[in-house]
Amino acid sequence: MARNIKVEELLQTPIEKQRIELVERKGIGHPDSISDGLAEAVSRALCREYISKCGTVLHHNTDETQIVAGRSSPKFGGGEVLQPIYMLLVGRATKEFEGVELATESVALQAARNYLRKTMVNMDLERDVIMDCKLGTGSSDLRDVFKRDRVPVANDTSFGVGHAPFSELENIVYNTERRLLTDLKSRMPAIGEDMKVMGLRDGEDIALTICSGMIGKYIDDLDSYINMTQEMKIYVEELATHYTERDVNVYINTGDNLKTSCVFLTVTGTSAEMGDDGSVGRGNRCNGLITPNRPMSMEATSGKNPINHIGKIYNLLSTQMARDIVKQVPEVQDVYIRLLSQIAKPIDQPLVASAQIIPKEGTSFEKVKSEAEVVIDDWLSNVTKITEMVIRGELNTF
Amino acid sequence: MARNIKVEELLQTPIEKQRIELVERKGIGHPDSISDGLAEAVSRALCREYISKCGTVLHHNTDETQIVAGRSSPKFGGGEVLQPIYMLLVGRATKEFEGVELATESVALQAARNYLRKTMVNMDLERDVIMDCKLGTGSSDLRDVFKRDRVPVANDTSFGVGHAPFSELENIVYNTERRLLTDLKSRMPAIGEDMKVMGLRDGEDIALTICSGMIGKYIDDLDSYINMTQEMKIYVEELATHYTERDVNVYINTGDNLKTSCVFLTVTGTSAEMGDDGSVGRGNRCNGLITPNRPMSMEATSGKNPINHIGKIYNLLSTQMARDIVKQVPEVQDVYIRLLSQIAKPIDQPLVASAQIIPKEGTSFEKVKSEAEVVIDDWLSNVTKITEMVIRGELNTF
Amino acid sequence: MARNIKVEELLQTPIEKQRIELVERKGIGHPDSISDGLAEAVSRALCREYISKCGTVLHHNTDETQIVAGRSSPKFGGGEVLQPIYMLLVGRATKEFEGVELATESVALQAARNYLRKTMVNMDLERDVIMDCKLGTGSSDLRDVFKRDRVPVANDTSFGVGHAPFSELENIVYNTERRLLTDLKSRMPAIGEDMKVMGLRDGEDIALTICSGMIGKYIDDLDSYINMTQEMKIYVEELATHYTERDVNVYINTGDNLKTSCVFLTVTGTSAEMGDDGSVGRGNRCNGLITPNRPMSMEATSGKNPINHIGKIYNLLSTQMARDIVKQVPEVQDVYIRLLSQIAKPIDQPLVASAQIIPKEGTSFEKVKSEAEVVIDDWLSNVTKITEMVIRGELNTF
Amino acid sequence: MARNIKVEELLQTPIEKQRIELVERKGIGHPDSISDGLAEAVSRALCREYISKCGTVLHHNTDETQIVAGRSSPKFGGGEVLQPIYMLLVGRATKEFEGVELATESVALQAARNYLRKTMVNMDLERDVIMDCKLGTGSSDLRDVFKRDRVPVANDTSFGVGHAPFSELENIVYNTERRLLTDLKSRMPAIGEDMKVMGLRDGEDIALTICSGMIGKYIDDLDSYINMTQEMKIYVEELATHYTERDVNVYINTGDNLKTSCVFLTVTGTSAEMGDDGSVGRGNRCNGLITPNRPMSMEATSGKNPINHIGKIYNLLSTQMARDIVKQVPEVQDVYIRLLSQIAKPIDQPLVASAQIIPKEGTSFEKVKSEAEVVIDDWLSNVTKITEMVIRGELNTF
Repeated sequence: MARNIKVEELLQTPIEKQRIELVERKGIGHPDSISDGLAEAVSRALCREYISKCGTVLHHNTDETQIVAGRSSPKFGGGEVLQPIYMLLVGRATKEFEGVELATESVALQAARNYLRKTMVNMDLERDVIMDCKLGTGSSDLRDVFKRDRVPVANDTSFGVGHAPFSELENIVYNTERRLLTDLKSRMPAIGEDMKVMGLRDGEDIALTICSGMIGKYIDDLDSYINMTQEMKIYVEELATHYTERDVNVYINTGDNLKTSCVFLTVTGTSAEMGDDGSVGRGNRCNGLITPNRPMSMEATSGKNPINHIGKIYNLLSTQMARDIVKQVPEVQDVYIRLLSQIAKPIDQPLVASAQIIPKEGTSFEKVKSEAEVVIDDWLSNVTKITEMVIRGELNTF
Repeated sequence: MARNIKVEELLQTPIEKQRIELVERKGIGHPDSISDGLAEAVSRALCREYISKCGTVLHHNTDETQIVAGRSSPKFGGGEVLQPIYMLLVGRATKEFEGVELATESVALQAARNYLRKTMVNMDLERDVIMDCKLGTGSSDLRDVFKRDRVPVANDTSFGVGHAPFSELENIVYNTERRLLTDLKSRMPAIGEDMKVMGLRDGEDIALTICSGMIGKYIDDLDSYINMTQEMKIYVEELATHYTERDVNVYINTGDNLKTSCVFLTVTGTSAEMGDDGSVGRGNRCNGLITPNRPMSMEATSGKNPINHIGKIYNLLSTQMARDIVKQVPEVQDVYIRLLSQIAKPIDQPLVASAQIIPKEGTSFEKVKSEAEVVIDDWLSNVTKITEMVIRGELNTF
Repeated sequence: MARNIKVEELLQTPIEKQRIELVERKGIGHPDSISDGLAEAVSRALCREYISKCGTVLHHNTDETQIVAGRSSPKFGGGEVLQPIYMLLVGRATKEFEGVELATESVALQAARNYLRKTMVNMDLERDVIMDCKLGTGSSDLRDVFKRDRVPVANDTSFGVGHAPFSELENIVYNTERRLLTDLKSRMPAIGEDMKVMGLRDGEDIALTICSGMIGKYIDDLDSYINMTQEMKIYVEELATHYTERDVNVYINTGDNLKTSCVFLTVTGTSAEMGDDGSVGRGNRCNGLITPNRPMSMEATSGKNPINHIGKIYNLLSTQMARDIVKQVPEVQDVYIRLLSQIAKPIDQPLVASAQIIPKEGTSFEKVKSEAEVVIDDWLSNVTKITEMVIRGELNTF
Repeated sequence: MARNIKVEELLQTPIEKQRIELVERKGIGHPDSISDGLAEAVSRALCREYISKCGTVLHHNTDETQIVAGRSSPKFGGGEVLQPIYMLLVGRATKEFEGVELATESVALQAARNYLRKTMVNMDLERDVIMDCKLGTGSSDLRDVFKRDRVPVANDTSFGVGHAPFSELENIVYNTERRLLTDLKSRMPAIGEDMKVMGLRDGEDIALTICSGMIGKYIDDLDSYINMTQEMKIYVEELATHYTERDVNVYINTGDNLKTSCVFLTVTGTSAEMGDDGSVGRGNRCNGLITPNRPMSMEATSGKNPINHIGKIYNLLSTQMARDIVKQVPEVQDVYIRLLSQIAKPIDQPLVASAQIIPKEGTSFEKVKSEAEVVIDDWLSNVTKITEMVIRGELNTF
């Protein structure tokens, strides 16, 4: 059956030429990101458990972790968590299959604790965290849906959106958090995983406001703190030059009051230890960013089952489509994908697959159009590839 | 101090002329909307309690309700909830003020139960719901921030977005849910508050897919069910003619299987009774819609304190600004507002207040620009009016 | 099959002649008693639900309610609960029977809330209490056990104990709480349901220490409070004369400090509102008392299923046996019953039914022995009568 | 001030001469014992934390752990926990002292997890357990009470009871559990910590019914299981000969059905993994036993603060007194101690310290009386020694 693919030319100021652009990324230790990470870790663990015990992924959605902040008393050279952070894993999972009972809650709990241990390296799981779990069973037996001999049908009437390529600012914001945590942190362990990078481009001026929960035990005193944030600033300024020729100003922890030594210190690297709650789906979209100048979906990508949940698959898929179109069709300036499902229809047959394309100046939209259609159609023909990539952990969801 | 207001002309296909447009609204009984509603009801109740006991609103944010679905056994003519829906109110609140202890948790609990009783009229609060509450104290004493003799300073570096006017599709989607619940429901009590209206405009064709959890006890049998959904369809089709001349097709509960009598029935009017979890900030934006063709903010508006939380105030404010610009500047076709705060700066002095305007064909952007600037500047001068409107319950947040 | 009934003469100073006797009763509003009451109310409601839906009582045990105290700010003439009391219903219940799903959690929740509303008349269930529920399924399907065509088999190797008659002090302590709450409270609503009556008999002197959480809203001021406790004292002194000719001294709220107005006030009538946690099985035994001069069982009677749970049935049964022996065999001074079950054996065939009897002076033990055996044997032959009395609510469990 | 010590002669059949005697011990892995152990571990950790941070023990009571059973699928050679056991630590603790905030919840959580890891060696804390914690603050600031320059005053009007010496049956029951777990288990790791030893002496015949949750992964098959329980039986029979010359019959897991291979297997060593809930204070008294032929107190000893909580101190103290009297006064056959406090009076001045003594045949009660009084008075003079022993972990509480 032919797919309903609609590629149209978008008449719009391309993002780089718009006057104001806003981009945000929450670091992996932000309470909302921790929630996303836990939700996705649990879903992946369930997928593996289901495959191992039942030969196929069974119905589940674990996209609702709630984090209730603790209390802490951070200090230079030490500090402690006073009241543990409470983390509640929430969702649905199939608990029985052909007479076999499945250890869904235990698997979820273990996966969550493992994820946290790997991600939040300064969190003491024995005393800083209460990990709770409420997994219900689903609304019905979707076993048939999950059979792999045909394309699954959509769980809902819902949509996903994606765009490409990243703007300069998007690249800077994304990589600032990534490089601070994967590169600079290796020699400056005081950098906390809870980070918020807010980028504002006003014409040709870029301002990066970084809020980073520094880890007290690695910092001797205020001087040391000032030196570190200064080094971070220089690091980010240098990093930005790889992505832009615009002026970039970097501001770190602007809420600090150095006179009163009231600075952004943490014990564990996340503000969830002290007053900041978190939940799934309220932070980064699946491309790793929050981009109010771009179309976005409200659907949480993390934690949903990767078999038939449109809120996950179509967000990931549209992002892959957009990136491939940009890669394979050089005349594309900006592309926006929107995929809309209809409940109970095969997921390779969306109600509409819409692409809006801004061609580069001087290029023909018609050529672009047909090439983009091919990319979209190919991806839809291979939609279950997204499922496999998710299970293998090859696609980020936040 | 002069404000940093940037009004630019946006070169873009106006929304009504884009080929594909998607708009969604989750009804007030959708698990995500219930979460939003509870969060906001709690915040309003705390505001009133603080004013009554302390003369001023104190620091709080209660924007993190988590709903864990129950289990139910719906039936024509009856049905019952088997396992109660678990609702966890989460957030921060000031519990002591000048030596007086405040009943924050009790106030929150009562407000939440009252809200639910009023909103979900078929839910039996004695047996269908477990209402739990975990309110911590905040990260620091923000009392100074909340003094009313000067403009509060921003709690965070964050942004809000808004647009106006509503497109035809936006109007249809929004009013479909509103009128079904406020008008048709008065004579057809079987309509559940949990509704999802998904609108797709493909050129001149509009498809409305409505998913509505019907309430079993008001429906005798399958025939009766079919008659009711048919009546709803006719009602919505007629309603749509008030907003558009385009073709409108309405689809209700397309997931139903009439042969097996497997239809979307509920006991209480919400799918939270059976398998659908919910949380704050994952549904409608503060204008009541999810609009992937429009800029959106990821910030949850519901439950945040209305004094200095940018994630609430700037989303509400930018929407008001956009609506007033459209009202006062007739040459404006579409306007998009983005307000970006800087932590610890007065909220009437955003880092940038950006407006992107598509003028109507044949009008002068320059005239529009200056008039829009006046509207924006006026609103910023009167920013605390938003606070007052929130406390009085005059602004919806979802 | 002949039953293993062992009646022996006990050579022991009868209770009334022992020098020191201690007796305690916790009022129905004591946090431990509330837990007991909730547990039993839930079990009764489940019994009724099972009978109504399945024709027979199914396996359940709900004997583990946990109460976590709230915070309150009591005052003369008013006061309020600041943080709700958290009550967690815990236990096991059969959730499915021959394909029918049963509303166990909803039934439990409703029963608990109803019980609380009736028992704690000054508690506002909308804001003073969070009622939570965690009912698992049992360790195995005990359906066969619950068939009514034969005597059920014991769920465990366990025992129950009972004695009769009540001593003077036991009568006084028991009736003090009962009459204060059922009689005096009707004209003095300030008496809280949370009461602890501690009786000490030292030879011929009886001291009753009563700790009673008075309800602030019914008391204007300290003078009024003093008058009320004085009236209570007089009331109890008069009451005691119905049971003893010994000297009785009554002390009420001896922890009060009248100079600092630091007295035992509550908002709701129970100290669970402020600092006193509670759980099942830690207060009164099933005869309503705690009696360290008498044999006791550690088994919680409340909340266990009345079909085959020895910890419930044998405690109730041995108390009934003891009372009937005293009633029917006038030569008995004191009798102590101990019933020991063996797991998986019919409950009318205890491993041993032991009676220790102190005959009245000058009477023949042999006559007493055979008459007591008959009472015991009769009760064992009609053991399921206990089950029926429990379900009908005719037997107290605390 | 002279103390109110009352030593009386008890005319009573000594325990060894009573016809029927019942004694029970719950093993350290029984759900009720785990609750006791967690509660006491938390209290000890808080004592140490308070001393380390504040120089003195501050007010706390953590005597209310609630265990909600999980689900498991035990097997010979393996098995797994399907749903984690939920453990809720409940109590009160001082969270602030002279401006210093104390990490009470974190300390509690860590202590609980450590205790569990050491006690339940086959429990995987990463996936088998959810450890939750709700510690409130107390009803008032008892700091003054806790000053060490004078004897603390009683927190309540309450009592403790103790007796000595152990009867033969008490010794057998107590040591059966102890030796199985500390000696035989070292070469038979399949013995689970969840054990219930029920002893019945009927005249000269002793029956020990042992219910022991065997650990599947150490047992190959049913034959192996049968061999092990047989070896346990022989071990206990031999052990009993050290304490009695009476006939002892040992029954292990009499609920097993060998034909259907339905035997008492566990994954973790405790039935809390599958259907058995638990809570503090419902199992062993502080002497390690449940003894319905002896006076008992209902007060939970575990988890209460060891400074002024009568429910803890007087139970431990009366047991120490009884044991010392037996040791130092050889003419004592049986001694029963009851200590009754009065709220707000120094704990070395009980309202009454009652001893009931059965002297050995042919000995003078008068001599015994005065010697016993000395022991009692000495202990009361040194009552705070109990506190120190508790903090140092030298006294068991269950």
